[in-house]
Amino acid sequence: MKATVYEGNKTFKVIDKEIEQPKTGEVQIKVAYVGVCGTDVHIYHGMMDKRVNIPETIGHEMSGVIEAVGEGVSGFSVGEKVVVRPLDDRKVKASDKGFNHICEELKFIGIDSPGAMQQYWNVPAFTLHKLKENTDLKLAALIEPLSVAAHDVRLSGLVKGETAVVLGGGPIGLLVAMVAKEAGAQVIISEVNPKRIEKAKSLGFDAVSPIDVDLVDYVSGKTEGRKADVVFEVAGVQPALDVMCEVAGIRGRIVMVAIHGVKKEVDLFKFFWKELKLIGARVYEKEDYEKAITLITANELPFEDMITDVQPLSNIQQVFENIDNNPDGLKVLMDCQA
Amino acid sequence: MKATVYEGNKTFKVIDKEIEQPKTGEVQIKVAYVGVCGTDVHIYHGMMDKRVNIPETIGHEMSGVIEAVGEGVSGFSVGEKVVVRPLDDRKVKASDKGFNHICEELKFIGIDSPGAMQQYWNVPAFTLHKLKENTDLKLAALIEPLSVAAHDVRLSGLVKGETAVVLGGGPIGLLVAMVAKEAGAQVIISEVNPKRIEKAKSLGFDAVSPIDVDLVDYVSGKTEGRKADVVFEVAGVQPALDVMCEVAGIRGRIVMVAIHGVKKEVDLFKFFWKELKLIGARVYEKEDYEKAITLITANELPFEDMITDVQPLSNIQQVFENIDNNPDGLKVLMDCQA
Repeated sequence: MKATVYEGNKTFKVIDKEIEQPKTGEVQIKVAYVGVCGTDVHIYHGMMDKRVNIPETIGHEMSGVIEAVGEGVSGFSVGEKVVVRPLDDRKVKASDKGFNHICEELKFIGIDSPGAMQQYWNVPAFTLHKLKENTDLKLAALIEPLSVAAHDVRLSGLVKGETAVVLGGGPIGLLVAMVAKEAGAQVIISEVNPKRIEKAKSLGFDAVSPIDVDLVDYVSGKTEGRKADVVFEVAGVQPALDVMCEVAGIRGRIVMVAIHGVKKEVDLFKFFWKELKLIGARVYEKEDYEKAITLITANELPFEDMITDVQPLSNIQQVFENIDNNPDGLKVLMDCQA
Repeated sequence: MKATVYEGNKTFKVIDKEIEQPKTGEVQIKVAYVGVCGTDVHIYHGMMDKRVNIPETIGHEMSGVIEAVGEGVSGFSVGEKVVVRPLDDRKVKASDKGFNHICEELKFIGIDSPGAMQQYWNVPAFTLHKLKENTDLKLAALIEPLSVAAHDVRLSGLVKGETAVVLGGGPIGLLVAMVAKEAGAQVIISEVNPKRIEKAKSLGFDAVSPIDVDLVDYVSGKTEGRKADVVFEVAGVQPALDVMCEVAGIRGRIVMVAIHGVKKEVDLFKFFWKELKLIGARVYEKEDYEKAITLITANELPFEDMITDVQPLSNIQQVFENIDNNPDGLKVLMDCQA
């Protein structure tokens, strides 16, 4: 079978290798599509070389079909469409207080262990979620990032009629915006890239550039002065951290979706003054996957527009180079059977 | 009557003035005791000269007895013991979403308008909470800061059996610790001042210096590795902001009690990684006052030990000078009838 391998130094190789049989408790998946995640790009840039066991196959936003079932696995059959929730929480402890998805010893499949960017992939059966037979496997590759968005929106406590401001209109920002809109919120996206603003508008969103308009005035005007009930910080830059405290209204909730690798300046006075809440959010729980699967199955949101390119595994090197050169794209899928 | 007046430039004057009759909707209180708040010290230091209408009588942590009742006031009688909840929310708007205590146009009585450090004080009747006849008026002067603590603990969502770490063992830190302990939490106080550590220990608290011990290890050891369920940041310094993200366990809640006047560095990665929550808390709501009144009336917590000095109004200048020179004291009360 064909498999891709990250070798460090911004290099992927495509190799031919034997298909391994699934071990006890494992299922073998014939991988259909794998989305390229920001984390994969981060790995490609060498930022996670200490964590990734190079040379390694990466990738975790996937869809596929069960090809073989290992010993001791029940409830799964060959031919079923599935997605993997790539969290290995087998080392969970009491001190993790039941929050398995962020347990101290969590291993992320596709970063800490081999990932999906290959034709066949063996994973522990407990990571699987079944899909309906008629599910589009291209869209199903969006279930993992959509689960991130579902988790973010769930933790925000967003309710119908509230106003959500999404800072950053990239793939995760747009998925958060979709889930928030589906939950009944008025959604405003703040994004600096003109092409992404156009894309957000074409998806039906109210999207503005904080360079062109005063975002706080804009949101105030749209909310009779209430400002944002919920802010999703997805941009990961200092200006977003500055504006999040301004654009949030009284008792506003700010969900920290972006990953800030170094300490950043935060206006804690605003947290005191308006009784703001900052909510850290990481990956997803089982119910977020179920929510994402329901949304993808219903296919009533513009998910298809999120997929801006589909490429065969053999083009992996070019795919990652293109992402660096073309920051306007949204989700690129690797077609693992092509 | 005797009244004190802040004149700017670290100066108070004690004056004799006519007792004014209460206006429509007002009640006249014969003030018993007024606690000196950190905010009063801030005013004394000239930090709020733009906000305070100098020359002005300040003070808002008080107890007293109704002396006269203005027109249009019902439900209050001369001789009743009362405390004032010094929030004037008469300009509340729809965009404040019902959070009157932090409404955009909130006026704080004793900062934005005349305060309690005088013998007779006229206030709007809606600010009053009645006390039981047998209430100790010295202890009752602690109701306002105790309500701050009750608000902080309530917003934290602390439940019995959880571990709370209080960063900072000054007056508010100790009151937060008392309310948290009363709620059934294991409480650990982190404080650098040796005299305050001794005081906290004498009040029955587990108190350590983060200079002498590794606070994270210490709390881990006391919680079988869970670390803090709730952290109260009452210290207002960068090392407290650094340690709060470390000492909080998975899904830990951090309540921002301290007032940080400038932007500070925060480890947002930890918020993402452990799904921490930061909860801004300001003043109190009606139910927090009721909780504080219940606690003071029951008098089962070491409130008396919080009062380290009682001085007549005529000594006000010396009181503020002493607070600057003696940072070990806790709560100083002004005796307004002496």
